Amino acid sequence: MKHEDSSWCCYQLSLYRSPTNRVGVCKQEMLQKKNAVLVDGVILNGPIMDSKAGEKFVEDACKIIMEEVVQKADDITEKVCEWQAPEKLKQILDLEMRDTGECDQKVLQLCRDVIKYSVKTNHPRFFNQLYAGIDYYSLVARFITEALNPSVYTYEVSPVFLLVEEAVIKKMIEFIGWEEGDGIFNPGGSVSNMYAMNLARYKFCPEIKEKGLSGLPRLVLFASEECHYSMKKAASFLGIGTENVYFIKTDERGKMIPEELEKQVQRARKEGSAPFLVCATAGTTVLGAFDPLDKIADICEKHGLWFHVDASWGGSALISRKHRRLLHGIHRADSVAWNPHKMLLAGIQCCALLVKDNTGLLKKCYSAEAAYLFQQDKFYNVSYDTGDKSIQCSRRPDAFKFWLMWKALGTVGLEERVNRALALARYLVEEIKKREGFQLLLEPEYANVCFWYIPPSLRKMEDGPEFWQKLHQVAPIIKERMMKKGSMMLGYQPHWGKVNFFRQVVISPQVSREDMDFLLDEIELLAKDL
Amino acid sequence: MKHEDSSWCCYQLSLYRSPTNRVGVCKQEMLQKKNAVLVDGVILNGPIMDSKAGEKFVEDACKIIMEEVVQKADDITEKVCEWQAPEKLKQILDLEMRDTGECDQKVLQLCRDVIKYSVKTNHPRFFNQLYAGIDYYSLVARFITEALNPSVYTYEVSPVFLLVEEAVIKKMIEFIGWEEGDGIFNPGGSVSNMYAMNLARYKFCPEIKEKGLSGLPRLVLFASEECHYSMKKAASFLGIGTENVYFIKTDERGKMIPEELEKQVQRARKEGSAPFLVCATAGTTVLGAFDPLDKIADICEKHGLWFHVDASWGGSALISRKHRRLLHGIHRADSVAWNPHKMLLAGIQCCALLVKDNTGLLKKCYSAEAAYLFQQDKFYNVSYDTGDKSIQCSRRPDAFKFWLMWKALGTVGLEERVNRALALARYLVEEIKKREGFQLLLEPEYANVCFWYIPPSLRKMEDGPEFWQKLHQVAPIIKERMMKKGSMMLGYQPHWGKVNFFRQVVISPQVSREDMDFLLDEIELLAKDL
Repeated sequence: MKHEDSSWCCYQLSLYRSPTNRVGVCKQEMLQKKNAVLVDGVILNGPIMDSKAGEKFVEDACKIIMEEVVQKADDITEKVCEWQAPEKLKQILDLEMRDTGECDQKVLQLCRDVIKYSVKTNHPRFFNQLYAGIDYYSLVARFITEALNPSVYTYEVSPVFLLVEEAVIKKMIEFIGWEEGDGIFNPGGSVSNMYAMNLARYKFCPEIKEKGLSGLPRLVLFASEECHYSMKKAASFLGIGTENVYFIKTDERGKMIPEELEKQVQRARKEGSAPFLVCATAGTTVLGAFDPLDKIADICEKHGLWFHVDASWGGSALISRKHRRLLHGIHRADSVAWNPHKMLLAGIQCCALLVKDNTGLLKKCYSAEAAYLFQQDKFYNVSYDTGDKSIQCSRRPDAFKFWLMWKALGTVGLEERVNRALALARYLVEEIKKREGFQLLLEPEYANVCFWYIPPSLRKMEDGPEFWQKLHQVAPIIKERMMKKGSMMLGYQPHWGKVNFFRQVVISPQVSREDMDFLLDEIELLAKDL
Repeated sequence: MKHEDSSWCCYQLSLYRSPTNRVGVCKQEMLQKKNAVLVDGVILNGPIMDSKAGEKFVEDACKIIMEEVVQKADDITEKVCEWQAPEKLKQILDLEMRDTGECDQKVLQLCRDVIKYSVKTNHPRFFNQLYAGIDYYSLVARFITEALNPSVYTYEVSPVFLLVEEAVIKKMIEFIGWEEGDGIFNPGGSVSNMYAMNLARYKFCPEIKEKGLSGLPRLVLFASEECHYSMKKAASFLGIGTENVYFIKTDERGKMIPEELEKQVQRARKEGSAPFLVCATAGTTVLGAFDPLDKIADICEKHGLWFHVDASWGGSALISRKHRRLLHGIHRADSVAWNPHKMLLAGIQCCALLVKDNTGLLKKCYSAEAAYLFQQDKFYNVSYDTGDKSIQCSRRPDAFKFWLMWKALGTVGLEERVNRALALARYLVEEIKKREGFQLLLEPEYANVCFWYIPPSLRKMEDGPEFWQKLHQVAPIIKERMMKKGSMMLGYQPHWGKVNFFRQVVISPQVSREDMDFLLDEIELLAKDL
């Protein structure tokens, strides 16, 4: 049953929706109806929204989304992107927000344009970032989330999503190899690393929560040279300072050298500073390297340092019986960041910070005990009101999309996804070795395949500064050409003195061997005149 | 055109989807096909996903979402919540994630259950939080976001969403009254306040980014007693310390008293600490109070303090020509937090931190210049790669949902929404005054209507500690009853020595006068024996 007085609903809309596809009713007519209540010039009878028209709009839009995004997700004849330069795209899209609204037909056209000019990150040939592809189950979970519009802080307003988060965290903890623990989903690996850093600091000196860092010795933390840039962002944001991140040298494969870590910890102690945290990386962003966790754990134990593992990218290998050895020793970590939105396709964002402690450290560190939200005299067990563990107030139910996907695919299905991505990366590596003009940076251990393409004109040049300088310019040119053609997307970057090289990331289950072959063929084609 | 080799797709699924509704193909058969490529035991031909079945699943699920959520959003005969205690709900929902997946029919049933037992935050009688209702345009934008799965950091991967964010920020700045400025969408008002605090600190002493707070004088910031609890969370997280938030007394309406601020700034100076920031609140969480921005701006100017306005809740009044006077003086702020996901229904989360500075302060403060993401040798103008202003790496395109809604409704439509919500609140206040047993805490100036319900048995009691002690227990009982009945949801809390009272928040355009009357009738009904 709808509101009895729903005939009121269209009037106000008609005021500002012109031209409109909805039927307006004149104000005078409305006021003549019985029970009309006018406050501050606003008629308060009945709802203001025309729900039938709204539902129709949602249905029409869903049809467009199905046709233009979902059904095209595995269509390799579609473009990955429809490139337009910023100034041109501004002209094409009608960005201006005006006093009067647009009719639904115009808004639907806007939706089409937004889709058309957006990069298709679920296209089988989108290899540009550490996420790609489409998972139908997680997608449905995300649609449900948006329709229900929940915020996860109290059991009272998010009963299902709080229980789901608890179950997912428990399961992730099981895969890390802890007997118990705690955790919280949050908006990204960067934020997860911040959570861990603050938690380690709290454990080191709980008084910092109230007193702050002023007057304390300089806190120092350690991470490899190859760690994610969020370590610097976190150190700056948390008032620790980027200079107090001591970067540890890595070996030729990008892994932290434990002996170098030991040296730096001793150096920090000698300087009179206060080392408190080591951040190892399981799956570095560029090279996909895994730090030797077990050896790093030894050093942390020896020096009493919090051991955090940033497994935002590599954590998903824990699901694979074949590949979880990459993270050998992770069970010794005090905290772990793990993003199922990357390798496992849970959708941006789906990131957990997991903590081994089970004495309520997370809550003690983060709680502010807002009385208006976390009332203690509720009629249910308020230990389910977990929102006070968060730095956020409103929080999205990101665990839910991972949960629904896991329910549908099973652990074995998730494992299959990881195994396949890594087998495809392995296939690509072997193909690269066979082809003239392609050169691997290093043998990868994960899904990051880093390589140079040496175009025909450079193949006979002598090795030397001029060669590398010229090679440095090749990847950006190829990238520009592939973007403008829209045939695929692939990242490049310089790295620690190495000139621009491609980083190919294999994730999506929509991808096959044929796409790997295409990638190499296409680079050759795009660069044949270089 | 789909992948040529798509006949391969079903094999691996059949391994672990049992019982399954999809046709499996035996491995032997697959391997006999031409070109079979097997790496590490994984067949790499064709995609692993059965996209037709996946699309069918999404379509079936969308039907459920339309019927069970979207079409019921304005149906007052539906329950707001289907209450179950945590232990019982765990039994009902099959939370366990297993090795093998469930068939699509089972997953669809799970979706139904998730919806059934979730709180309907878009129900016309959900008054529990600072968000409510449904907006069909923002909902569609959110569905598009989920389908496209973008991350907003570089123009290359998010061309449309970066331009949209730029346009929305520009428009919000216009409504604040600044001539120019900068900003970033981020996951919540709490995080926005953190951004502002760190930015103010950076402006105060840029070296903190590299050096940290160690060895510096104690930084002190000021906020009213009524400010959001995120101020404490932020001070703790940023290493400033909760004790260094000096809470300023408020008047009887919950507004910061400027003279008290002046005193506290002077006290901080005398103590030798370093005051750097004043956080005013425009729309406090419980009372909906607006601090006197213009007078606070005078004090900030006088003392050279950064002036931040937490307008997470109240910012939307800027859209209303009638009500924007509540924020008089906001144009003098250095930064503003504003959440369109609250009063304007943009969907959780949609929150901007806006900054008056236009010299690149935001970028200077937050950048880490990751070479793998923010390459400087791209073929387009890299000033559009705005992701380095963020504390996040992956970031959702939250501006987009606000933009699409604004396009559809126009400024006048958004204004209408604010005016109507405040008119409904005004109507409720007048009704409360008329009814026996209801008592207002204070005359509200925004959409928060705070009141006690005094049940029959307490009406003749003498005013005194016993009366208030008994009254304190009333709201939790009524709340329990309304939750178990599922007829509506309404928050309560104690506050600064005042015993438990209800906080009614009016937002949704689906709400009408009839719902206000119902609210009061229902409280009377639920509490008639108390």
